[in-house]
Amino acid sequence: MEFRQEWLHEVRKAQKKAYVPYSKFKVGAYLLTKDGKDFHGCNVENAAYGEAICAERTALVSAIAQGYQPGDFAAITVTTDAAEPSSPCGACRQVLKELCDDDMPVFMTNPAGDIIKMTVAELLPLGFSGKDLN
Amino acid sequence: MEFRQEWLHEVRKAQKKAYVPYSKFKVGAYLLTKDGKDFHGCNVENAAYGEAICAERTALVSAIAQGYQPGDFAAITVTTDAAEPSSPCGACRQVLKELCDDDMPVFMTNPAGDIIKMTVAELLPLGFSGKDLN
Amino acid sequence: MEFRQEWLHEVRKAQKKAYVPYSKFKVGAYLLTKDGKDFHGCNVENAAYGEAICAERTALVSAIAQGYQPGDFAAITVTTDAAEPSSPCGACRQVLKELCDDDMPVFMTNPAGDIIKMTVAELLPLGFSGKDLN
Amino acid sequence: MEFRQEWLHEVRKAQKKAYVPYSKFKVGAYLLTKDGKDFHGCNVENAAYGEAICAERTALVSAIAQGYQPGDFAAITVTTDAAEPSSPCGACRQVLKELCDDDMPVFMTNPAGDIIKMTVAELLPLGFSGKDLN
Repeated sequence: MEFRQEWLHEVRKAQKKAYVPYSKFKVGAYLLTKDGKDFHGCNVENAAYGEAICAERTALVSAIAQGYQPGDFAAITVTTDAAEPSSPCGACRQVLKELCDDDMPVFMTNPAGDIIKMTVAELLPLGFSGKDLN
Repeated sequence: MEFRQEWLHEVRKAQKKAYVPYSKFKVGAYLLTKDGKDFHGCNVENAAYGEAICAERTALVSAIAQGYQPGDFAAITVTTDAAEPSSPCGACRQVLKELCDDDMPVFMTNPAGDIIKMTVAELLPLGFSGKDLN
Repeated sequence: MEFRQEWLHEVRKAQKKAYVPYSKFKVGAYLLTKDGKDFHGCNVENAAYGEAICAERTALVSAIAQGYQPGDFAAITVTTDAAEPSSPCGACRQVLKELCDDDMPVFMTNPAGDIIKMTVAELLPLGFSGKDLN
Repeated sequence: MEFRQEWLHEVRKAQKKAYVPYSKFKVGAYLLTKDGKDFHGCNVENAAYGEAICAERTALVSAIAQGYQPGDFAAITVTTDAAEPSSPCGACRQVLKELCDDDMPVFMTNPAGDIIKMTVAELLPLGFSGKDLN
């Protein structure tokens, strides 16, 4: 799936909702499903830092809670206020691996509108998955 | 806020959406906001067990991603298929503490419809919070 | 088990090892086993805030990795630089519940040497555990 | 740093200490510091699946709690009982990124003694780090 400029607007709207009293580092995510629905995600921090939940995971679990299932997703876009586009953290890559197709695109962007595209598989090479458990 | 019987139906609907290929233990959450909107939550597991996200947190971050803020929540109900009502895990209690009023009720229920009510503060006595960080 | 003054010295030593470039909030833990061995713990943060690991869990998993098993622990002491003794976060309470006896004491202390004592069960009332899964 | 056969024996010893009542999937880690000390790690699970801690992180935080600092590590070896060598999960890759050199080798092995080698940077391409936060 190719990137569309209107997603920049959506991911910025998502980012505004971030709850980040500790880092002040707002992250937004914009998730599209294969059937054309979309979900916003933002990071939700905690005084106990380890209980923070990232924007990418917020968007993904929101979709699951509305009835979507692994494999139903078409693309995700992520933004922060950093000068360079930031990538998903490791835990988010693991959740993307679990819930999304290996070739699903992850678009990373920044305030200047630069875009970096990587697939889920590229972000977690030789990724750990359920087949390792069997 | 007092428990309403129709919430049992909603939390069961939320529970059905759980993604639990590893534990087979489906959890549902039903979150109400003070302005009358509601959110479903379910647990979303991962082959890497530590990356699992619980039903309560799924519901809460879904609401934040739609623009709700800490303090906007009125009640949450949780259910599983265990014989006795199950309580939120520690990480969920920490996220409830961060995002909800101390006296917000948490209703725990089971397939038989038994109800246990505790407040957020009762679930995390002497809870760690942002004021500890200052 | 009663608190011993020399533990204050040990938990301060543990605290010094904290890796906290993001919060600057150093936490130390001092864990004792029933057979008299001890383990230091400190918080280990991450640029991805959600991947932080707390002092209490660091001490507990260090002990497990050296061969100790659930039920082998006698007491844990925790300290920070906050004016009031801080309590373990929810995730740590959940791990304490899994690995320690319900009546094991958790001692919370501060730079002034004040002590608050609670048991594992008191910190996670009606705690979620493996029996809920069956 | 090149792989040494005796590490297979050590990582197997570490693996035996895993606490895995839920997955039954034992993981071992064997961490070496640049000054020649070593640390065992094993996974430590929880009834609340999301509170599980992996073998790699257990080894790393054990070392930090004994005074080691980011950059002090030389190599880590990981093993499971799966037929193919398993890789670290995303959260572990993020913690490796935070605490280890980008070119530190991660050796993945299996019961047959096959070895796959990747660096920390290869496991988390374009990895998120503290410089993104500034």
